Amino acid sequence: MEFQKGAILILSGPSGCGKSTLLKEVYKHIEDYYFSISTTTRNPRVGEQNGVDYYFTTKEEFEKGIESGEFLEYAKVHDNYYGTSLKPINEALSQGKLVIFDIDVQGHEIVREKLDSIVTSVFITTPSLKVLDERLKARNTDDIEVIEKRLKNAKIEINSIDKYDYFLVNDDLIEASSKLVSIAKIARIKASLFDKDFIVKNWLN
Amino acid sequence: MEFQKGAILILSGPSGCGKSTLLKEVYKHIEDYYFSISTTTRNPRVGEQNGVDYYFTTKEEFEKGIESGEFLEYAKVHDNYYGTSLKPINEALSQGKLVIFDIDVQGHEIVREKLDSIVTSVFITTPSLKVLDERLKARNTDDIEVIEKRLKNAKIEINSIDKYDYFLVNDDLIEASSKLVSIAKIARIKASLFDKDFIVKNWLN
Repeated sequence: MEFQKGAILILSGPSGCGKSTLLKEVYKHIEDYYFSISTTTRNPRVGEQNGVDYYFTTKEEFEKGIESGEFLEYAKVHDNYYGTSLKPINEALSQGKLVIFDIDVQGHEIVREKLDSIVTSVFITTPSLKVLDERLKARNTDDIEVIEKRLKNAKIEINSIDKYDYFLVNDDLIEASSKLVSIAKIARIKASLFDKDFIVKNWLN
Repeated sequence: MEFQKGAILILSGPSGCGKSTLLKEVYKHIEDYYFSISTTTRNPRVGEQNGVDYYFTTKEEFEKGIESGEFLEYAKVHDNYYGTSLKPINEALSQGKLVIFDIDVQGHEIVREKLDSIVTSVFITTPSLKVLDERLKARNTDDIEVIEKRLKNAKIEINSIDKYDYFLVNDDLIEASSKLVSIAKIARIKASLFDKDFIVKNWLN
């Protein structure tokens, strides 16, 4: 008799906090999830696959989508569009899936505002700003300017942690991923209270 | 740097829904918890142990406790007092323990109101009122009048499920206890956001 409905799990946190690595661990322990993939008009880089890394589309198609209200949110960066298409999200939710977003603080607010599903959110970060700085420099993939920008963003975003349900320090990967698995499982259980009247009516009959 | 503080987990649900059995499963998978034990002035029954089933005390001591504000809540039933003493709860919370309550809908509200810790609550019940009726009759421990009273209470209490964080149907013991373990683990993680200012300050330094 349990009321079934999809649920949303939002992950935010600075670039370099280890979200992708944590998510890989989580996927081993949960079922029926859909990771929200962005749509973009930029060209695929070597190794990138359509429907895995991004949904690749044309500028023309993207602009049609904007007009028809297809996007939950979108932005134009360096002459290319990036956006989150509502269609695959709504499909996954209607199938009762757990929809997982890796988005920033602003995206978190938009999802809570615009999607009519139970949301569980977690802010993930390093033990400290210093550790984030060290990790970003150690992975050696970004210019110093990009790193500075990421750190500046991180300093701003940490002030929004009270808008999240959970705060997770990714210090020890095993411990943090075990906690994130619990949060992902709970995201679905939380949705069990989605329709109180339905539950009560069914329980009494 | 994670801010450590005890957390509270509240279980409510009709007598016969299987809370005690579920809790026994949960205890195998969590650490550092304290199950809140009631204090009573009634005599111990055969097999009952002080500090396990109840804290047994005298009427005189209990009334002193009422005067000094020792109880979170108390009631007089058939000339005997029953109450929840604040002292062991506050001790456990200060040690960072997860304090677990098995209380009714009214007790749930009192704990949320009076205790300054992060509360996670779950309403547990059978798949339906009919199943509850069958289980209560099958366990053969109560008179029909007591069963009728329990069913009547259950019909009232189900209407308060929206005051709880989670709703759990105890249909399959393995599935329900696995969910309850996740909820118990999450109760502690949730408390990690208890002091935002402390977190931000420490993270930036």
